[in-house]
Amino acid sequence: MPLKDPKLFRSEINQSPFYKTIKMQLDKTEEKGSLLKIKLGRKHHNALGIVHGGVVAALIDSACSMSVIPHLGDDETIVTTELHIQYYLSVASEIIIGRGRVVHHGRRVVYAEAEVFDKEEKIIAKGFASFLIMKKSADKGE
Amino acid sequence: MPLKDPKLFRSEINQSPFYKTIKMQLDKTEEKGSLLKIKLGRKHHNALGIVHGGVVAALIDSACSMSVIPHLGDDETIVTTELHIQYYLSVASEIIIGRGRVVHHGRRVVYAEAEVFDKEEKIIAKGFASFLIMKKSADKGE
Amino acid sequence: MPLKDPKLFRSEINQSPFYKTIKMQLDKTEEKGSLLKIKLGRKHHNALGIVHGGVVAALIDSACSMSVIPHLGDDETIVTTELHIQYYLSVASEIIIGRGRVVHHGRRVVYAEAEVFDKEEKIIAKGFASFLIMKKSADKGE
Amino acid sequence: MPLKDPKLFRSEINQSPFYKTIKMQLDKTEEKGSLLKIKLGRKHHNALGIVHGGVVAALIDSACSMSVIPHLGDDETIVTTELHIQYYLSVASEIIIGRGRVVHHGRRVVYAEAEVFDKEEKIIAKGFASFLIMKKSADKGE
Repeated sequence: MPLKDPKLFRSEINQSPFYKTIKMQLDKTEEKGSLLKIKLGRKHHNALGIVHGGVVAALIDSACSMSVIPHLGDDETIVTTELHIQYYLSVASEIIIGRGRVVHHGRRVVYAEAEVFDKEEKIIAKGFASFLIMKKSADKGE
Repeated sequence: MPLKDPKLFRSEINQSPFYKTIKMQLDKTEEKGSLLKIKLGRKHHNALGIVHGGVVAALIDSACSMSVIPHLGDDETIVTTELHIQYYLSVASEIIIGRGRVVHHGRRVVYAEAEVFDKEEKIIAKGFASFLIMKKSADKGE
Repeated sequence: MPLKDPKLFRSEINQSPFYKTIKMQLDKTEEKGSLLKIKLGRKHHNALGIVHGGVVAALIDSACSMSVIPHLGDDETIVTTELHIQYYLSVASEIIIGRGRVVHHGRRVVYAEAEVFDKEEKIIAKGFASFLIMKKSADKGE
Repeated sequence: MPLKDPKLFRSEINQSPFYKTIKMQLDKTEEKGSLLKIKLGRKHHNALGIVHGGVVAALIDSACSMSVIPHLGDDETIVTTELHIQYYLSVASEIIIGRGRVVHHGRRVVYAEAEVFDKEEKIIAKGFASFLIMKKSADKGE
């Protein structure tokens, strides 16, 4: 179901520590998909001076999960079970944009995918995630 | 081939910005495999107060690539083409350890895998990466 | 580049032994994508009487590679390096249709994806493949 | 739990139509892992005269699921949710052997992996599958 207060939700997500750590920002999370970005700088670089693959992985993971959230029931939550990333091009841009969308919403598993673009809208990477749907009330695990 | 000066190499890697950003540290990179760790804290948390999946992805990506480095020739370098992660358990530990190893070393592609453990050596996640081998002298791309 | 004689190409592919073994047929292989189908019967069943996952995997592998072929140069060929499949629904249909398309065409690696539908055009599975581009003249490997 | 009658179980699996279609045979299915093989011939070839990737995928899918079976409860069954295959070498052998084992057995999801060898025990491919655990009595889906 659509989020009751998307603005509040985005604000909470954008306050989360890891989002700040890697300068990631959630811009949209709608039933038709999510939109996030990361402002890149030296802090994202590996020893070769290029953006670490983990940064792109974090963006894809988040773009996928944020596309699933508006499809969940009130007492449902998700845990990522798998994440697969294909790296097409190395990043040469001061910003990367992630767009996620739900591909299949089953009863127990939701599948989403996300594409990462540079600021010229060139595709940099693509990823696919699957999530187990769980009741918030139930205990965690898996 | 084995690294000529593993200590210097580790030191360079550990100075890299993204390693510092997520408190990741390379402890070993030998032909038989790599060993890395991340000291976890609030900065790695998502909005639910649990470790963001991107942190585990970054550790696996690094554990895989650091296991490949000692197998490369002097003028060879690698780019990640794919990364696949299976999340088994959520992290409830102040440290996570990544161990990587090469699974198949072809002429053009190297495949590695890595396991992530908590401090009780319980397996948290497993991942698989593939890398394209490139000449350092040649132009980048892909 | 577009195939010089798509009809002849399809005929050769459709004569290949494994296509006959699993009743797979190539209907289209164009630059914008491929179209294949499998006529299902008892021979595709596992011990539970449902279609074996390997059948869907074979369709996705073929739909991906057949979408790449029209993009290759005259002296280029491909080898599959990775194949990833997400199974959404079990098959309950006497035919499955695979549609593949190229997602990213790099210099050394091509990435394609394919969706599998039942005869009511309901999505059953999705898959992603990567291929190493090789010169036909060069020796094999990898 | 261990299978009550492993010999009967293997016999049933080996009678299943798709196993016969691709000449696959289950030799072992124990708690520590599974062992299967495929006798290769012209019927497994693609148009280039090499073994179709779908054959290796089917072997990995089966080696993974057969390694999970002895770990299930009496009223439990599994459905494959994802399958990922890395192709290391093309097959040049009249037989391929698949060995599967469980990597993580969660409450809702089981993860298994399998390696494919040629008759000289050279590794040809490796794969990873995940399975949703379901009650036999409950309705299907996902």
